[in-house]
Formats: sequence, structure tokens, C-alpha cells
Amino acid sequence: MSDLTRRARELDSADELADKRKEFVLDEVVYLDGNSLGALPVAVPGRLEDVVRRQWGELRIRSWDESGWWTAPERIGDRIAPLVGAGPGQIVVGDSTSVNVLKAVVGAVRLAGEDRDEIVVDATTFPTDGYIAESAARLTGRTLRPVTPAEVPAALSDRTAAVLLNHVDYRTGRLHDLPALTAVVHAAGAIAVWDLCHSAGALPVGLDEHGVDLAVGCTYKYLNGGPGSPAYLYVRRDHQDRFDSPLPGWNSHAEPFGMRPSYEPAPGALRGRVGTPDILSMFALEAALEVWEGVSVDTVRAKSLALTDFFLECVAAYVPDGTVESLTPLAHEQRGSQIALRCDGADDVMRRLIERGVVGDFRRPDVLRFGFTPLYVGFEDVERAARVLGEVLDS
Amino acid sequence: MSDLTRRARELDSADELADKRKEFVLDEVVYLDGNSLGALPVAVPGRLEDVVRRQWGELRIRSWDESGWWTAPERIGDRIAPLVGAGPGQIVVGDSTSVNVLKAVVGAVRLAGEDRDEIVVDATTFPTDGYIAESAARLTGRTLRPVTPAEVPAALSDRTAAVLLNHVDYRTGRLHDLPALTAVVHAAGAIAVWDLCHSAGALPVGLDEHGVDLAVGCTYKYLNGGPGSPAYLYVRRDHQDRFDSPLPGWNSHAEPFGMRPSYEPAPGALRGRVGTPDILSMFALEAALEVWEGVSVDTVRAKSLALTDFFLECVAAYVPDGTVESLTPLAHEQRGSQIALRCDGADDVMRRLIERGVVGDFRRPDVLRFGFTPLYVGFEDVERAARVLGEVLDS
Repeated sequence: MSDLTRRARELDSADELADKRKEFVLDEVVYLDGNSLGALPVAVPGRLEDVVRRQWGELRIRSWDESGWWTAPERIGDRIAPLVGAGPGQIVVGDSTSVNVLKAVVGAVRLAGEDRDEIVVDATTFPTDGYIAESAARLTGRTLRPVTPAEVPAALSDRTAAVLLNHVDYRTGRLHDLPALTAVVHAAGAIAVWDLCHSAGALPVGLDEHGVDLAVGCTYKYLNGGPGSPAYLYVRRDHQDRFDSPLPGWNSHAEPFGMRPSYEPAPGALRGRVGTPDILSMFALEAALEVWEGVSVDTVRAKSLALTDFFLECVAAYVPDGTVESLTPLAHEQRGSQIALRCDGADDVMRRLIERGVVGDFRRPDVLRFGFTPLYVGFEDVERAARVLGEVLDS
Repeated sequence: MSDLTRRARELDSADELADKRKEFVLDEVVYLDGNSLGALPVAVPGRLEDVVRRQWGELRIRSWDESGWWTAPERIGDRIAPLVGAGPGQIVVGDSTSVNVLKAVVGAVRLAGEDRDEIVVDATTFPTDGYIAESAARLTGRTLRPVTPAEVPAALSDRTAAVLLNHVDYRTGRLHDLPALTAVVHAAGAIAVWDLCHSAGALPVGLDEHGVDLAVGCTYKYLNGGPGSPAYLYVRRDHQDRFDSPLPGWNSHAEPFGMRPSYEPAPGALRGRVGTPDILSMFALEAALEVWEGVSVDTVRAKSLALTDFFLECVAAYVPDGTVESLTPLAHEQRGSQIALRCDGADDVMRRLIERGVVGDFRRPDVLRFGFTPLYVGFEDVERAARVLGEVLDS
């Protein structure tokens, strides 16, 4: 047994999250793509069957009350809240991340007031955030200013209305400094909007602690909600009564069943709701979130860093010199829960890895992306992934 | 046996859609609320279990290709198309109705051009359409002009950019004249947007035939897609290359996996997509749509009118004089697939009906609303519903 294999076993034995793996449906594959689609939690199929057969099939419309359908967006939002450092009553679940980006950016511009005419956006962002921010700028008569995260402080001025940033870069896995960037945005009198897609469920976010104004995130990566499960919107408590959504659907009305011709927004986080919630996807998510019972995000973060450290160590040991280069920073405070390796012929390399039971994904033009979900990835998985990568690159 | 009971049996025996009832999970209740939430199709639970356990649980991300997840919005759109008289390639499924109303109304204003500054909206509409139309007006710098459907022709002018109308009124069940209203909107040089929530699956719509520009609809009423199942957007073929969405998410990009910083819209109906589709809800809908195999919408419409005619006849026979008054027009060409009865104490009356196994719904302030889904409601159901209503109002 090699030294790395022995170390992997020891690390797995000492892993206080090791038992969590049993709460997911997994097989012999090393699944390092949970940052694209989280694995299926064991609790989901049974829950969904009950929702379909009994709640929909037997109770039908009575379920809007009796099965808690109507209140699902805010109830599930409160379930996500502790994972991102938010107190209750500030998150609602529903719609896609893109739709929530529109709500958040337009809402942020309106919070910032009439005299601020620029929206700053991370130019390296996952593209949809940039496209939607551009649409938000056009719809509100503002100018969009794309800059790299490092350029954000210098780009801010009394013209800045809102700044849309990613907590973790989807491609490189770089973790941005949310507390510091939020503070400089606030110092400029602007509104900070954070996209948490690649951080929520993998590391502490601290929305309340750091005074983040608005945030959005998906639930199908580290939160394991299922393919296309609904996203969420956080509106800081003290902004809620001025939050002015571009999507004032009937679900966000103060009296939704009043069927009134004029719109009057509900108090609180409910204001982020729009139309009828998609109950099947939402209840699958709710069941998926039960795996977090008794789990501390700090423990998850510690294991995530140990996993990515160990992966880099194994890659250094197994992979031929000069064949890969990590795009993900070595410094812990700049690292998300993924490792992105630049590699010639990455597309083909990933195909061969997958054939050999190691699943990551390829991002153009030349990136191998490996996501580490601490709830179900172990150290032996990590060692095996690096070993197979070494074999593929050796051949 | 009374004459009406005998007639009901005869009508059921002659009903060529009678066998369709077996394709739904139903019990001894008379379910006349399919215009709020359609009953569960038998095919759905098994399909959803496969999507969850095999496609998500075993194939995981491979399902985006191998299980047809990625192409679901346009594939399911094409499945809805014949039900609303649309050729293929013009409908995409996804997001809520409210979100699609924003896409359609902003898109319509942009199609109409800079020099048209008014949006006309049905003042009696389901409220969310009015709220979202108001938001669309604000976001595009237009003025919102709410008028009753009867006032639409007189309200149109060369200032009119877009007109948002309901095919069937959610409260009264009145069917509006889509061909004639679309024609007057076009004569004024404006864009016609129709909300089909209460007509699709219950009667012919004829989107292509009547030259409708844009349309939206939900799928959880007469299309039985399940609670909060995704809505759809129709963009007429010859408008597609100029359709300019306020929600240009990455799913509508010409090259979604190119991850390009600048947005370039996809050709065709795909332009109506936004973010990652909610696969669970979407595949439940796809299974639900299979009940339409071999069903003609004209047959459905004929049965719908026969059901509502017979219901009105039974109500006249069983219900004490002067206790109810139909808000739904008697003329077939003005009637959707529901009957709305004005009734003192309607809230309490509906509660007692439901206790006695007749499920409709109450709409404020004084309306009993009964929806007739021709695929699973029979004439004996109708007779029983009217009889129980008579007993409740007699007591």
C-alpha cells in the first residue's frame, strides 16, 4: 500500500462527516461533479412519491393548505438560511438563479436611488449573471460596467448603484473576499449583490454578519436539490420594506387571494416570491436539505479544504510533471470547494476519466473541473481520482 | 330514477372520451376544480420515480444529454403546441406564468417599436397579469392602460404597443373572442399577447390560424402537469428573430456552453428559455401530456359545452329559485369550460359542498366556481354536483 493510500484511509477513519455518505445514493464511481449536480439524497424518492401520490393525487387542491404547499418558498428558505449565515425570514425559494439575479439587480438599483447610474459586475462571472445584469441595466436605464473582482474597489464611485459578484468563481474555483468586498461596496454607498451558487453548502458565507444586501444562489450543487431545483433570493431584513421587485407576481401580494387589481407588496421576504411555486421540485429540495441536520458548515469547510489539499498533494505525486496546472489558488482563504486544472486536451482527458469511473467536468477551453462535496466525497475517492488522472495523462 | 339521472347515464354511455377517466387517479369525489389543479395522471408517479432514481440517482449529470434533460423545454413545448393550434418550434416550457408574462409583454413592446408608448391590459384579468404588465410598462417606460375587454377596440390607437388579454376570464368563465380581438389589435399595428391559462386543454385556441403574436399559459389546470408545473411561452415564428427577452439567461444563448461573456440569442423559440430547467416538474408534465395522445381538442370542446350545458340544466332543476345566478355566459361562443355561480354566502356553501364530496372553489366575494375537465369529468358527476348544490342551498 502506498503512503498516499494509507493516508487516505486514515483521513477517512478520522472524518466526522463520513457517515453522511450513507444518506446519498452513490455507487463505485468517484463523483467529483457535485458542483454541477449534487448526488441524490436517499430521502428524496420516498418524499416525492408521497407528494405526488397522496398530496397531489388524493388531497389535490387541499394540499395548498394541508400539505404546506403555499408556504413552501419561505419555509424552505428558512431551512437554507443557517447554511449561508442568515437569520430566518430573509430567504425565499423559487424560480431559477437567472430570474433571481434580475430581481436582485433591479431591486438593488432601486434601493440605491435615482442618482446612481452604474451597475458593476464581475466580468469573469458565470455568463448568465452578466447577461441578466446587462438586461437589468437596460431596463433601469443604467450603465453596465464589467470589471474583474480585483478591479472592483477602484471601479466604485458615487455613481455606483449596485455590484454583482460571485462568491466562488465557477471556472477557477477562486473564493472571493466577501466581507472585504462588501465593505468597500458599502463604503461607496452602493448595494452589494452576491451570487452564492458555488459556495452555499461548501463553506461559511455569513450573509448577516457581513451585512450583504442581496444574494441569490442555486440549490442543485452543494445543496443537492436535484436537476434544476429552485433557486433562492436573500433580501436583508432592513431592506425588505423598500425592496421593489421587477417581478411583482400575485404570490408576493400582501393579500394574494384578495385578487385585487392593484399591487400591494407583502411584508418581509415574501416580496421575493412571484408566481405559483413548483411544488414537486421544491419538496424534493426540502427533503434533500434534511441531510444538513446536525451538520456544521465549519466542519464541512474544514473537510473541504482537507480534501482539496490532499487532492493537490496526490496530483503532485501521481501526475507527470508539467501536464496540469492548478487555476485554483493554493491559499485557503482564496479557495472554494473545487480544483480546476488547466490541461492540454482537457476535453478528451475528462472523457477518459469518466470512462474510468472518475466524474468531473470539462470547461472550455482547457479546464478539468473537480468539485468536492464534503458530505459524500471521501479521501480514498480523492486519492483514486488523482491516481487515475495520473494514469490517463501517463498513457 | 329521475329524468336527469337517466339522461346523465345516457350521455356518459355515448361519451367517446369516457375511457380517458381511467388515465387519472380519481376517487368518489366529484372533482370540479381541475381549472385550479388538474387531477394526477396515472402515468406520472412511475415516470417521476424513474427520473429521480435512475436519471438523477444513477446517471446524474449524464442525464443532461442521455435522458433528454437539456432539450426538455422545447420538446415539451412541441407537445403542447397542437393543443393550442401551434406548429412546432414556437413554444418553450419553463418558469412560472408570471415570469412568462414579463417576457411576453416586454418582448411585445420591443417588437412594437420605440414610437408606441401604451400597453393595454384587461382590467378584469387574473391580478398577476396586471401587476406584471404594470412592471413591464415601468421597465420599458410605457404607460399602462387597463380597460375591460369590451373597451379594447376603442382604446387602441397608434400609441398602442401591446395588448395583454385573457382568453377565458378566471372568475366568470367568459371566453373572449380571440380571433376578432387579435385582428383589431393588428389593425391598430399593435402586438397581441394572450394568456391561455384557462383555455388551453379545454377548447381550441388556434394561435397560428389567428396570427396571435405571443402567448403564455400555465400547465397545471386543464393540462394536469401538477402543482406549480412550469408554464410556457409561444413566440410566433416570424417574430422569433426579433424577440428580445428581458430575461436573456444562459439557456437562451446561441452557444450556451460556450460560456461567452457577451450575449447572443439562440435562434427560434429557444430564445424564450432562461435558466436551468426544473427537470422534476418538467418531466412530470411531460408524462401528464401523454393522456392527449389521440384526443382531438374539438371533441374535448364539444364535451365541455355539453357538460356545462347539462350542469346549468341540472342547476335550474335542483337549486331553489333565486339562490344562484350564473356569471358565465349562456352563449357557447362566450363560454369557457367553467361555470361561475354568484351565490349569497358562497364561501360557506362551497365548504359544505366539499364536505359532501363536490369539489369546486370559492372566489371572492360571492362566487362558486366549477371547472369541467372533459378528460375526466362525466355527466353523472355533473348531475350529482348540481343535486348536492340544491340540497345544500335548500337546507
